[in-house]
Amino acid sequence: MKCKKCNSRAIANLKQYKIALCEKCYPKFYESLVKRSIKKYGILKKDERILTAVSGGKDSVALAKVLKNLGYEIEMLYIDLGIREYSKRCKNIVEKLSETIDVDLNVLKLSDFGFTIDDVEMRKVCSACGTAKRYLMNKFARENKFDIIATGHTSEDLTSFAIKNIVGGNFGWIEKLKPRIESFDEKIIPKARPLFERMEKENMLYVLTLKLPFSTESCPNAPINDWKEIVYEIERRKIGFNQNFVRGLINAKKLAKLDVKYCKICGEVTTSDMCAFCKLVKRYSKN
Amino acid sequence: MKCKKCNSRAIANLKQYKIALCEKCYPKFYESLVKRSIKKYGILKKDERILTAVSGGKDSVALAKVLKNLGYEIEMLYIDLGIREYSKRCKNIVEKLSETIDVDLNVLKLSDFGFTIDDVEMRKVCSACGTAKRYLMNKFARENKFDIIATGHTSEDLTSFAIKNIVGGNFGWIEKLKPRIESFDEKIIPKARPLFERMEKENMLYVLTLKLPFSTESCPNAPINDWKEIVYEIERRKIGFNQNFVRGLINAKKLAKLDVKYCKICGEVTTSDMCAFCKLVKRYSKN
Repeated sequence: MKCKKCNSRAIANLKQYKIALCEKCYPKFYESLVKRSIKKYGILKKDERILTAVSGGKDSVALAKVLKNLGYEIEMLYIDLGIREYSKRCKNIVEKLSETIDVDLNVLKLSDFGFTIDDVEMRKVCSACGTAKRYLMNKFARENKFDIIATGHTSEDLTSFAIKNIVGGNFGWIEKLKPRIESFDEKIIPKARPLFERMEKENMLYVLTLKLPFSTESCPNAPINDWKEIVYEIERRKIGFNQNFVRGLINAKKLAKLDVKYCKICGEVTTSDMCAFCKLVKRYSKN
Repeated sequence: MKCKKCNSRAIANLKQYKIALCEKCYPKFYESLVKRSIKKYGILKKDERILTAVSGGKDSVALAKVLKNLGYEIEMLYIDLGIREYSKRCKNIVEKLSETIDVDLNVLKLSDFGFTIDDVEMRKVCSACGTAKRYLMNKFARENKFDIIATGHTSEDLTSFAIKNIVGGNFGWIEKLKPRIESFDEKIIPKARPLFERMEKENMLYVLTLKLPFSTESCPNAPINDWKEIVYEIERRKIGFNQNFVRGLINAKKLAKLDVKYCKICGEVTTSDMCAFCKLVKRYSKN
């Protein structure tokens, strides 16, 4: 299999985009996809100072690198949550990343507030971790005059989160699943998800082809994410499901309330002059 | 395995309800489930004259029988769409059903309007069929003074329809996925879906245990329903998914817009007096 751009040996056949690419051409292709998302959905503005949240995993590593390569003004933020040795190993990785991609790294330690995630009861760990990250990211970004916080959420993250919430009856959350969320208060910094159309495997291939440092470890507290598994399974059966789903979320709008009219032929309720049934009769009837 | 109610030989172990039942006790159990749905969600009122749409398939056959057994005043409507021999075979079945369960059957023929579904181009068949059924059901129900139209939609029908529409960005449709839809115009008859919490296999077991006539044939025009397959697959992995999903649809409401307050400790945005982060600090901090 040859690279469609340069004819070298392809390392990946991207069925969804109907293109095979080599190690050299894939990163450029990936960057063009992210650039297109950002432009199409107005996710970032060119002059914004961006704080990128990094965990050390493939998705946030890909995010920092792609934003840097697309010419954005960014710094990274790592929050050391004090999760056993895991947090230390992730911190080492993002420090290496900072040197490799030449992007400043800021580090906040939850222990500066007198506790770590390891002090929280198991049952409340994930909720406390989310609270701490959201709080510290927002406060740090505001105090350091960043315009926006970017996170590496993927299409699988958003899709599984949406389905989980729909099943839970929380339709309100759907409004939060947009690629850019503006501030509703001067103390809140806007949020951006430039990778919302990307699949995890696309991010993985990007960090692998660029040989970036990244962690393959999962958080030791992370629960099994059944909804993620379901989303993977659907994608296996319907290629493109995730991307269609997140695009659907963006376009989420209520159907406009249509005026009630009455069909000029039969008098039944319709939205135009002639109802759909009379159109069928007109077209097909032999009477 | 013994029936939990009468100790005879059980024919089904309903894991979701943690009960094994025999051929005699299952129909009563099924009827109690439908009765509970109708009551809980106000799907039908006791004095309503109900027109039940029947196709001859297991779901609509189950619907007609369960409504009859629950004491509702119902008649059935079969619409002969003129789909080759299929429509004739289904008509024979519902005629037999009408005698078996002692419920009056009304038959409308699309050919009375000068055409049949077989006259429509393949590409437009399903859309034309939907238009014709909705139109004729509504007109017939109104002209014959029925209060409501009941259809045999199952939880799988509603779930797959919802996911398909979310992916298509049609959130507006979600509002239509309720078990009872009131009229928005005096010419429109309200719609009810008393089986919206039922799974297809529950309906199947009901018609089988009562030995009711039903068609096992699919419409020769029916496309492969990928979304249905996906919904079956999710259910296999997460028992109860469909029922939770349709209940989620009912409760679908936007999160109430919360007032913005500022934390009395740190001044960050919160919805109560103290923000979630300061609560964590207060609880866990050793400082």
